[in-house]
Amino acid sequence: MTQDNYCLIENYMLSCAADSAHDPEHIYRVLYNALEIAKGEEGVDHDVLIAACLLHDIGRKEQLEDPTKCHAMVGSQKAWNFLRSNGFSEEFAHQVRHCIQVHRFRKSLPPQTVEAKILFDADKLDVTGALGIARTLMYKGNMTEPLYTKLPDGTICDGSSEAPSFFREYKFKLEKLYDKFFTARGTQLAQERKAIAQAFYESLYREVNAGYMSGKEVLQQWIGEKEV
Amino acid sequence: MTQDNYCLIENYMLSCAADSAHDPEHIYRVLYNALEIAKGEEGVDHDVLIAACLLHDIGRKEQLEDPTKCHAMVGSQKAWNFLRSNGFSEEFAHQVRHCIQVHRFRKSLPPQTVEAKILFDADKLDVTGALGIARTLMYKGNMTEPLYTKLPDGTICDGSSEAPSFFREYKFKLEKLYDKFFTARGTQLAQERKAIAQAFYESLYREVNAGYMSGKEVLQQWIGEKEV
Repeated sequence: MTQDNYCLIENYMLSCAADSAHDPEHIYRVLYNALEIAKGEEGVDHDVLIAACLLHDIGRKEQLEDPTKCHAMVGSQKAWNFLRSNGFSEEFAHQVRHCIQVHRFRKSLPPQTVEAKILFDADKLDVTGALGIARTLMYKGNMTEPLYTKLPDGTICDGSSEAPSFFREYKFKLEKLYDKFFTARGTQLAQERKAIAQAFYESLYREVNAGYMSGKEVLQQWIGEKEV
Repeated sequence: MTQDNYCLIENYMLSCAADSAHDPEHIYRVLYNALEIAKGEEGVDHDVLIAACLLHDIGRKEQLEDPTKCHAMVGSQKAWNFLRSNGFSEEFAHQVRHCIQVHRFRKSLPPQTVEAKILFDADKLDVTGALGIARTLMYKGNMTEPLYTKLPDGTICDGSSEAPSFFREYKFKLEKLYDKFFTARGTQLAQERKAIAQAFYESLYREVNAGYMSGKEVLQQWIGEKEV
């Protein structure tokens, strides 16, 4: 890919930037992850891969404004239109569109090409480890969702219930990611990051729950005993 | 303290709730931390301590709206007014006011009473460990501040510069907290939580920086080589 074409695509990506969890730095990390994963794969078209990485989240703004829309679907069509109207070949635009369409996890729509598999893994890698935890917490803070919810008995819910919280996101999404990679290098990098994410969640739950468990009981000893 | 007085103070606290990092759950955690720390201290007035914990952040909203205001100063005066107008004694209101005034770290205004030292430690404990990391990340997300900033050479700044980011907050504040506790139990609890916070920061920095270090170099190999 020429420097000019890279800048053209990069600038279009920058003009589409949406929320803080999917800001341009996420895009660059995904691109760099993809280039690392590609080293272990054969027959990779790096031009398709670079364009697909840069453009994979350009449909985020539309999804944020209307959650019934899927950013992968919107983004793949926007990418096709952008590439075709800027002189890229039909075959190239078709390859990039496929990568973007299937980068979101759906059983019914698995990645078919090596570039699509690499983008999928590179994007998922950005939700693993300490980085996945950090991005999710910042996103929850931005959406003003809570860290945890409480059970009827006043103790902390570990995330296994339906109420939105960071703990729920960890239990339903982050914890289950690690076995869903397509490439060997993607799987390896994800596994290297697994322990810190798990240790963090467990420490967090322990720190929070310990206080509620003992604190509520001790408080009862001091309430109702005497008048101030 | 009677159940009625506890509910009166608790309801006033709930009516003053501000941002998500200092929501009512933070207040309850500080209260439970304080009761745990108090077990190791002598001569603690639990009524003063409970009231001070519940009311320590009631000046947050004023500080959020006007950052030149200090929530400890505003809150301590609000607490005094509230307690005096609800029939609490002058001595009691005075004790609670002192605790709230000095719960924020300032060399010029150290805690003088055992209750003030306990509140200080209980509040700081909520910024240690995984919980301190999680609360800070959610707060940064809420303020739409970035996770990290980049140095002129494109690598990641570890937080040692002035630009606002989570890494800066960790380096300038979170990392330095652990030696600033007044009570024995507070120090012990903080030390127990130190390793996970440190491990998380180090993993996060490594995960992010590794990509930028290798990725930028590899990208250069693929840009400018051929036309799409």
